Amino acid sequence: MVKPAGFTLGELAKALSATLDGDPNRRVTSVAPLETAGPEQISFMIDTRYRAAAEASRAGAFLVSNDASGLRGPLLRSGAPAQALIALLTVFHPPAPARPGVDPAAIVASDARVDPSAAIGALAVIGAGAVIGANVWVHPLTYVGPGVEVGEGCLLHPRVVLCEGVHLGRRVIVHPGAVIGGDGFGYAFDGSAHRKIPQVGGVIIEDDVEIGANTTIDRATLGRTVIRQGTKIDNLVQVGHNVEIGEHSIIVAQVGISGSCRLGRGVVAAGQVGFADHLTIGDGAVLGAQAGVSSDVPAGERRLGTPALPMGQTKRIMVAQKQLPDMVRRLRTAERRLERLERRLGIEASEAGPAEAVDEQA
Amino acid sequence: MVKPAGFTLGELAKALSATLDGDPNRRVTSVAPLETAGPEQISFMIDTRYRAAAEASRAGAFLVSNDASGLRGPLLRSGAPAQALIALLTVFHPPAPARPGVDPAAIVASDARVDPSAAIGALAVIGAGAVIGANVWVHPLTYVGPGVEVGEGCLLHPRVVLCEGVHLGRRVIVHPGAVIGGDGFGYAFDGSAHRKIPQVGGVIIEDDVEIGANTTIDRATLGRTVIRQGTKIDNLVQVGHNVEIGEHSIIVAQVGISGSCRLGRGVVAAGQVGFADHLTIGDGAVLGAQAGVSSDVPAGERRLGTPALPMGQTKRIMVAQKQLPDMVRRLRTAERRLERLERRLGIEASEAGPAEAVDEQA
Amino acid sequence: MVKPAGFTLGELAKALSATLDGDPNRRVTSVAPLETAGPEQISFMIDTRYRAAAEASRAGAFLVSNDASGLRGPLLRSGAPAQALIALLTVFHPPAPARPGVDPAAIVASDARVDPSAAIGALAVIGAGAVIGANVWVHPLTYVGPGVEVGEGCLLHPRVVLCEGVHLGRRVIVHPGAVIGGDGFGYAFDGSAHRKIPQVGGVIIEDDVEIGANTTIDRATLGRTVIRQGTKIDNLVQVGHNVEIGEHSIIVAQVGISGSCRLGRGVVAAGQVGFADHLTIGDGAVLGAQAGVSSDVPAGERRLGTPALPMGQTKRIMVAQKQLPDMVRRLRTAERRLERLERRLGIEASEAGPAEAVDEQA
Repeated sequence: MVKPAGFTLGELAKALSATLDGDPNRRVTSVAPLETAGPEQISFMIDTRYRAAAEASRAGAFLVSNDASGLRGPLLRSGAPAQALIALLTVFHPPAPARPGVDPAAIVASDARVDPSAAIGALAVIGAGAVIGANVWVHPLTYVGPGVEVGEGCLLHPRVVLCEGVHLGRRVIVHPGAVIGGDGFGYAFDGSAHRKIPQVGGVIIEDDVEIGANTTIDRATLGRTVIRQGTKIDNLVQVGHNVEIGEHSIIVAQVGISGSCRLGRGVVAAGQVGFADHLTIGDGAVLGAQAGVSSDVPAGERRLGTPALPMGQTKRIMVAQKQLPDMVRRLRTAERRLERLERRLGIEASEAGPAEAVDEQA
Repeated sequence: MVKPAGFTLGELAKALSATLDGDPNRRVTSVAPLETAGPEQISFMIDTRYRAAAEASRAGAFLVSNDASGLRGPLLRSGAPAQALIALLTVFHPPAPARPGVDPAAIVASDARVDPSAAIGALAVIGAGAVIGANVWVHPLTYVGPGVEVGEGCLLHPRVVLCEGVHLGRRVIVHPGAVIGGDGFGYAFDGSAHRKIPQVGGVIIEDDVEIGANTTIDRATLGRTVIRQGTKIDNLVQVGHNVEIGEHSIIVAQVGISGSCRLGRGVVAAGQVGFADHLTIGDGAVLGAQAGVSSDVPAGERRLGTPALPMGQTKRIMVAQKQLPDMVRRLRTAERRLERLERRLGIEASEAGPAEAVDEQA
Repeated sequence: MVKPAGFTLGELAKALSATLDGDPNRRVTSVAPLETAGPEQISFMIDTRYRAAAEASRAGAFLVSNDASGLRGPLLRSGAPAQALIALLTVFHPPAPARPGVDPAAIVASDARVDPSAAIGALAVIGAGAVIGANVWVHPLTYVGPGVEVGEGCLLHPRVVLCEGVHLGRRVIVHPGAVIGGDGFGYAFDGSAHRKIPQVGGVIIEDDVEIGANTTIDRATLGRTVIRQGTKIDNLVQVGHNVEIGEHSIIVAQVGISGSCRLGRGVVAAGQVGFADHLTIGDGAVLGAQAGVSSDVPAGERRLGTPALPMGQTKRIMVAQKQLPDMVRRLRTAERRLERLERRLGIEASEAGPAEAVDEQA
């Protein structure tokens, strides 16, 4: 007997720890976005921005928050709808299992230690003395340098580079093209040329970190570049030498973090933010997109703009800037009106005092 | 008998559909820039910015537009000089033909379907169930994941990554290091850690798209990330999950497009532009370099600055900003002059009214 | 007899050409940062920013500049402390020697010329007609295209791509993931589609250049893209087609240089700077982080901001911008005060003249 495709709403309610408002025997065969879902599919609305799309959707069922209202059709209600969505997607798309073992076309150094439960793909290179933990999946064309340690359950996508001596904790995910442990950018000018300062430190990536495609994380000059537990880094991010990023931070695409910055726990850096070197960014600080951060940021502060200022202040400046061209004209007009008034009253402009001299300091 | 090198101007006129103003038997052996071309070479001036360089050039012939004047020497005149330049470069530099067949050092899954006319380079990896169309050229060290479809005539340069399930149309060119189909950047914070939202959607790249070196295009969370026909993407660009870019758009280097943005047809995003998530950018919109786009842009509009405003407005602000330090001083001076006038007339400053309270709204 | 670990301070003083202020027989076993160094380690303070850390350090010895004072413990004094630091790091961390020879898992074209002293790693690909010089080290998974020339002593890290015809001088270092010689971004719109302009030029990288991880340097349309001697380029930098960068320049991470720019000798571009196309940047110019350079920069000038202006001017604008929201309010107040004064004196506002018409030109 063939097992029918998909899952009943009853089964899903159980898997998601959700409350079902509808027929538990109704069956859905896949998850789909609101716009394209049909009656045999389940969709979700966990953000009220999508209410209109949800109301127009033909989906056969919806995952929603406990307090959602107004949607017709069977509902799976959850008090933690984002976590329930993760469960829903995982039920329908369980991660492909790795096949333990070393592909015959992989190149593994004779003294590398590869756990028997690990999967090493074709044309992967595992260097001398590297240690690959249990249930690690190294995809094809990935390079694991000499002495690298890769902790239990890590997932290295195709064409990753881990340079010599890099250390990954457990369950770290590295996306294609990322380079961890390249040399930091350090030179000393000797009067005629930039001489390279040897970059002999390492990189520590702690547990549950995720690193995006084509992101680069440099090794320390001395000591360690450190990405702490649970931090997520998007694509094309640059992390300079000796940087430390605290736990559970979020670094969005194309951010650049200069050498020796210390970012705290739970920091959020939106896309394309740049950090000058040697800054200290406190726990929970938030940096808005494209911010140019040129000084330390206290814990919990929100910054925006170049140079980055408190977010509300930058927003007020941005609003005021729209009036600036008009203000140029209005200020000139005001000065003419002043002259006329002063003429009328027989006052000399010079009596206005030494304003220019005073203001030169600004 | 050895065929003489190069081409006669007569042959070139025919190949370029150009009108020859000079000796059809004169022979040129290669194309060269105006500055370095010698009498045996042909150069070109299709942009009048280069008139001075053209006049000084020692080139033996020039490709020019129909209305070009004042250049001595044989001229190939064209009504579509940019297209004629493409023809000229192609005549002298015909693309190297791929050798059909699978290199013995390639790794091709037993159930992958590779068209006999396709060329698969050394150390390329073709995953299970992948489909490689006619006349496709997969260069060495490129990874084509399980279930990927690569349409007729595609050109995958060395060390490209196409992740599982990515779909390429026909004649798509992907440059080295590009990663198509990495996971989108999506997490849900569960109170103590960021939990990964499975990224189970796909990527569709339509016909005649070109994708630059080390560019990253993420798969959708659900549904598809889509790059439509004829769009050209430069190097180091980030395209987030569920983004759609319309036909014939131009995305210059280091642009970042956040998740779920919809860009229309013929959009131009200059270098280093950033787009916030979920924006709609209308057909033909133009975004100036480094713009920070934080709200929707109607079709045909031009935007510049951070936040991106109409281009003329931003330019006026940029001009006015130069006066800003001076305006600080002048405004202070004006206020002093006002005080003096008010004193002279016996007016109290407070009579000026509740300006501060009113303006707090701004 | 086992050789004791590390070096005596006497040995180090000699190797570093430093003056020893302390016991020449004292032995140190490694170099460490000030914060973590113990009594058996040597640390360094070559920047007085770190004086407090140095004073608190438990290091067994310090490398310092000749004029450093106040530090207890053995000191190695140097008149060129940065160069001495390079020597110190090199003494303790001599670069791993390459093993000459071609790895059996490398793929080398039959007509490529590989110097016997060169080391070609596993799964590296050396294309037809490529020339690999003496003492070159090509790491695993690196692609050297047809006709590429790699000069003596170059170091190509894993997974580099050198496209067809690229030419590297001597002692060039290329970090993982860099792509040199990808196509430039050039198209001509034919009324319905962007047609690709063949990119048939080359790339010349001169001696002692260093190129960062995942950086992209495009080939010229015609002619050459050139990076001159001694220039150092950080990670994730984009260098467009036909760009020339002069000797000993410093290009920090995520900079984007548009096509046909000419940068002089000793130019410094800080992180995330963008250059519009066809600009000329004079010798020794300095561009501050995130600058948007939209016009030529004379030699020796310093620029900051978008658009990039003289650094002092941009800093004054940045300071003045903080007052801008307040100025909006104050200008409005000043205008009200003017009206009141004018009313008092019986002056009509319109008498103030045609300010608006005049200022429209701005």
